[in-house]
Amino acid sequence: MEEIEAQIERFIKEVDDSALELYSHASKGKRLRAKLILKIAGENESSYKLAAIVEMIHAASLLHDDVIDESLTRRGSDSINALYGDKTAIMLGDILYSKGFLELVSYDREISEAISDAVAKLSVGEMMDVTLSENINLDQALYFEMIYKKTAVLIEATAKSAAYLSGKDAEAFALYGKNLGLAFQIIDDVLDITMSDLQLGKPSLADFKEGKTTLPYIYLFESLNQEDTQTLNALYKKELSGEESRWIRTKMQESGAVLKSIELAQKLGYEALEAIAFDKNSDLERVMREMIERDF
Amino acid sequence: MEEIEAQIERFIKEVDDSALELYSHASKGKRLRAKLILKIAGENESSYKLAAIVEMIHAASLLHDDVIDESLTRRGSDSINALYGDKTAIMLGDILYSKGFLELVSYDREISEAISDAVAKLSVGEMMDVTLSENINLDQALYFEMIYKKTAVLIEATAKSAAYLSGKDAEAFALYGKNLGLAFQIIDDVLDITMSDLQLGKPSLADFKEGKTTLPYIYLFESLNQEDTQTLNALYKKELSGEESRWIRTKMQESGAVLKSIELAQKLGYEALEAIAFDKNSDLERVMREMIERDF
Repeated sequence: MEEIEAQIERFIKEVDDSALELYSHASKGKRLRAKLILKIAGENESSYKLAAIVEMIHAASLLHDDVIDESLTRRGSDSINALYGDKTAIMLGDILYSKGFLELVSYDREISEAISDAVAKLSVGEMMDVTLSENINLDQALYFEMIYKKTAVLIEATAKSAAYLSGKDAEAFALYGKNLGLAFQIIDDVLDITMSDLQLGKPSLADFKEGKTTLPYIYLFESLNQEDTQTLNALYKKELSGEESRWIRTKMQESGAVLKSIELAQKLGYEALEAIAFDKNSDLERVMREMIERDF
Repeated sequence: MEEIEAQIERFIKEVDDSALELYSHASKGKRLRAKLILKIAGENESSYKLAAIVEMIHAASLLHDDVIDESLTRRGSDSINALYGDKTAIMLGDILYSKGFLELVSYDREISEAISDAVAKLSVGEMMDVTLSENINLDQALYFEMIYKKTAVLIEATAKSAAYLSGKDAEAFALYGKNLGLAFQIIDDVLDITMSDLQLGKPSLADFKEGKTTLPYIYLFESLNQEDTQTLNALYKKELSGEESRWIRTKMQESGAVLKSIELAQKLGYEALEAIAFDKNSDLERVMREMIERDF
């Protein structure tokens, strides 16, 4: 992965030195998308550059997301908007997006189109996320459309592009990436409920406070009696007391809403593995298993 | 131009209906870049689409600029950030950028590369503009680099791409576009000083209040005696009284700072015309003359 980090830095330096300085303070993340590319397409100049491009685009979307969501932390560290203000985060995001697109142009149209189509959907996904957070959303179809666009679509395009780059079955890898992305987001939404602030590196139970009724909340609302529904409604978008937090966590476990969400994520995960079983790629299987077979 | 507006709307609708609704409230601007493309490349499907793409990218950059500059008006109307908040303006900008890039991919690499390279520079230009606005900047080279990146670079890439599309001399048209863009920005900076609020459709003398020492201010500082320099320094980033505004305007005229700026813009304009004199395109000459030969 060092080669990818170095390539990202070279790309940003080509645009502007001060942008590179700013970028050095941004969270680097798990580099899931870069790892996927290297594990599908192998290690070579072309896959290194594509991995750097996708990670720059992903970083740009997170920079803008953190401004939009007013998030002051990112993976346990201060976000760029917290450190340098919203303006700087918007501008650095624009620089990473546009340099990513510039470099994308040198790839075959199948790749540049897949990635840029994903970015267009990603922007819509962020807008859907904000709109759905205005009120309690209990529509599963809208939730799945939103997490597909916000999270899964870029992972889908990444896996598809990497397969195309190495002459593998692009559609099979696209399906792997899509299901991986959906499973990943559902598990992220579960962890917001089941983990402590310390484990998360940010405040837990933040989604409901921010107006996000993620899948476990949709399942929970479906299972509660009238009295408990009123109690949960009353906690929506509120700063929760310790007792209220415990109440939500207990109901989430008792009702099976958390378990049902984890089981769906795992089902998607196994479907993803099936889609590329023909490739017998133990690395890609491990990426998925590590994610879906952990403790919650 | 109706065809261009319809094409922009089709493009945005392909991404998201609610984005189109939002876009309908955005200022449409002068469509200078679209006009350039049609006047260089003629009217056909390919030039309509390229014009729509460039206008979407330009609109995206203005949406983000208005958030960054905290501008509440755009061409005399409420800006999108004033109407719907910063978040919405950032997201709509991201949607327009990414759809623009997605459509750009279908053009030859010479075109997609020229435009996406311009967008990367444009983001850096906006960052330079913000950085230079922190203190009084008297460095002409930095001012010219900033207005080149912030304004001229996309007009340069637009003219170059249109020439490429129609088999004309791309470098000559690039030079035309670059000089047109520089002249345009200098004149914009002059009008901030010479025009009334009513004529501008926004508060005049806003640049200096926002920390921007545009070319006329650089020339003015070069010509003032010590006492007047201190007076001007004291007005930097201040809300100006009527008397203070009149003082700046009088000094701008007396010192010749405004005239010198206009003459430089005109010189650039005539150089632009020279670059494409071989094309004998009276429309393009008129675009330039209308801009540089008006009353100030």
